[in-house]
Amino acid sequence: MSGEILKREINEQPEVLKRIVEQESHNVQELALTLQGTFTYVMIAARGTSDNAARYAKYLLGAHNQIPVALAAPSLFTLYRKPPSLEGALVMGISQSGRSPDVVSVVEEGKRQGRPTVAITNDPQSPMARNADYVIQLHTGPEKAVAATKTYTASLTALALLSAHLDANQEALAQLQKLPEAMQQTIDKISGLLPRVERYRYMDHCSVIGRGFNYSTAFEISLKITELSQTVAEPYSSADFLHGPIAMLSKGFPMMVIATRGSVIDDMRALIERLVELNSELLIISDEPDLLDEAHLAFPLPTGLPEWLSPMVAVVPGQLFSLALAQARGLDPDHPEGLSKITETW
Amino acid sequence: MSGEILKREINEQPEVLKRIVEQESHNVQELALTLQGTFTYVMIAARGTSDNAARYAKYLLGAHNQIPVALAAPSLFTLYRKPPSLEGALVMGISQSGRSPDVVSVVEEGKRQGRPTVAITNDPQSPMARNADYVIQLHTGPEKAVAATKTYTASLTALALLSAHLDANQEALAQLQKLPEAMQQTIDKISGLLPRVERYRYMDHCSVIGRGFNYSTAFEISLKITELSQTVAEPYSSADFLHGPIAMLSKGFPMMVIATRGSVIDDMRALIERLVELNSELLIISDEPDLLDEAHLAFPLPTGLPEWLSPMVAVVPGQLFSLALAQARGLDPDHPEGLSKITETW
Repeated sequence: MSGEILKREINEQPEVLKRIVEQESHNVQELALTLQGTFTYVMIAARGTSDNAARYAKYLLGAHNQIPVALAAPSLFTLYRKPPSLEGALVMGISQSGRSPDVVSVVEEGKRQGRPTVAITNDPQSPMARNADYVIQLHTGPEKAVAATKTYTASLTALALLSAHLDANQEALAQLQKLPEAMQQTIDKISGLLPRVERYRYMDHCSVIGRGFNYSTAFEISLKITELSQTVAEPYSSADFLHGPIAMLSKGFPMMVIATRGSVIDDMRALIERLVELNSELLIISDEPDLLDEAHLAFPLPTGLPEWLSPMVAVVPGQLFSLALAQARGLDPDHPEGLSKITETW
Repeated sequence: MSGEILKREINEQPEVLKRIVEQESHNVQELALTLQGTFTYVMIAARGTSDNAARYAKYLLGAHNQIPVALAAPSLFTLYRKPPSLEGALVMGISQSGRSPDVVSVVEEGKRQGRPTVAITNDPQSPMARNADYVIQLHTGPEKAVAATKTYTASLTALALLSAHLDANQEALAQLQKLPEAMQQTIDKISGLLPRVERYRYMDHCSVIGRGFNYSTAFEISLKITELSQTVAEPYSSADFLHGPIAMLSKGFPMMVIATRGSVIDDMRALIERLVELNSELLIISDEPDLLDEAHLAFPLPTGLPEWLSPMVAVVPGQLFSLALAQARGLDPDHPEGLSKITETW
């Protein structure tokens, strides 16, 4: 059955996360020490799925390390040939292939301006890695499905390692050890629910809502749904959603909401209550049983994972939902029409 | 007929831009001088329409002033109560009301950390303005329609003034003088085309594509379409679109493309050629006659405006399209259901 490649890569994630935590921890500890005091903010270049990892970095480095993150506008470095002055910046590229030309050129420019540079990539021989002072390797093995899954959660884990080591945060490092097991529990729980995805066979659009750490998850799930199932899926933070798009909600409009315990839970709870009043179709990804009770399709997450690590597991229901929806529609999830693995954008 | 308030505010834009250029130039010149050398990057806080103005700032300050721009994650300052260290930053808030609590709290935090702060707002007495060292006033008069139009183009013009004065760029300042007339020409040209918007009476989703300076335009037009006409509209850069969403394109999928002369035109031309092959429904906003020829609905822009000022006029077809589409559907464009002017998000 088509989708076997993608499914295998989704299922590899517990092993992949274990590997990166084990094999990169020492390297990241050393580079974190070397980087101390060399920058006041981080400029990240990334595209597609990796750009969603960069969104996670913005919340993680902000909330845990008090480091502001700017997302690079790659076209300033390429089409406009007017790179900004990077004084004060740590320049970071995230790209599983390390070959996206526009991302490579941001890292190159960082180097040219004498700034410290970090590459997060699967390929230490790639042009991006060769241009960077430091490399954090993803250790995922080859990703053969066109849609990125394990390289996404590996990129989040690389960033989590970096954040923990920048502050020598032993509690965070201990929490990271538990991530692979939580990932396995999530995959086991969600896989059993997939027959219920048939309900969405004729859905033609939906919105995905997350906030804070899981703002990245909303973007990544939207991208997976769009790539794999040819459905328009639009990501929003709950705050931005209330600033406009809520106006378009008709009865039965499908809303996928990521609501995990932590600083944003009250906010997400209030949103869900409002969506219930508006008769939305609710798909809820949560570790809160009472919120899951409000859903037409509930995706339970394991409890006990701290909020900052929830994005690694919260994306999994979206990965599996997109796979199952593609299959329900007779599409090939391994090779979505019109996509290639490395896009040569400038 | 409902929509009169919104239409009047769209039509006021030439006058509004003239007013801000005339009345704020001296103030902005002085604050630009004072700010010289006090920061290495700009951190902008904004929500909704103002966040789209911040996207413009990212390209404008990057390409013209070599200043990197980071968009604040307001929830770090509010929900997480873990504001990043703002060393090196100029902190800027953009909010027409100056009352969006999360935006206000970013400016407050900038002040608390002793950083220079700028407020771009319609209301110099607002909490955001009172917390800022410097205020750039929008001078739009009251905006009564719920959907922001004139305050958006006024915010772009405020940023354009700031960019020009930061470099004492006399050529840019001279170009800015011509903007109100180009705005009037655009409104005149596009208003005559609005009966043709009926074609989209039953469209239920679309994508809007822009790149570089007009990446902001793609976001703002998407927001207007979504707010006013209850249609799902999703913005993309042409680069990101090729990295995934192009897979969802079915024959006849409506694509609105902003393609103005300048550094990104070859890129946009290539995208349009690809979309023609895929039998997309094309709505094109352009100052290039041969690209307009490819469109099912062509929105011509006046020629002769430099690329950096094109976003002020390129958004106008989107504003008027959204208004006309709402009217074609019997919706009230002045008071879209479920929206209020100031959203109290934290």
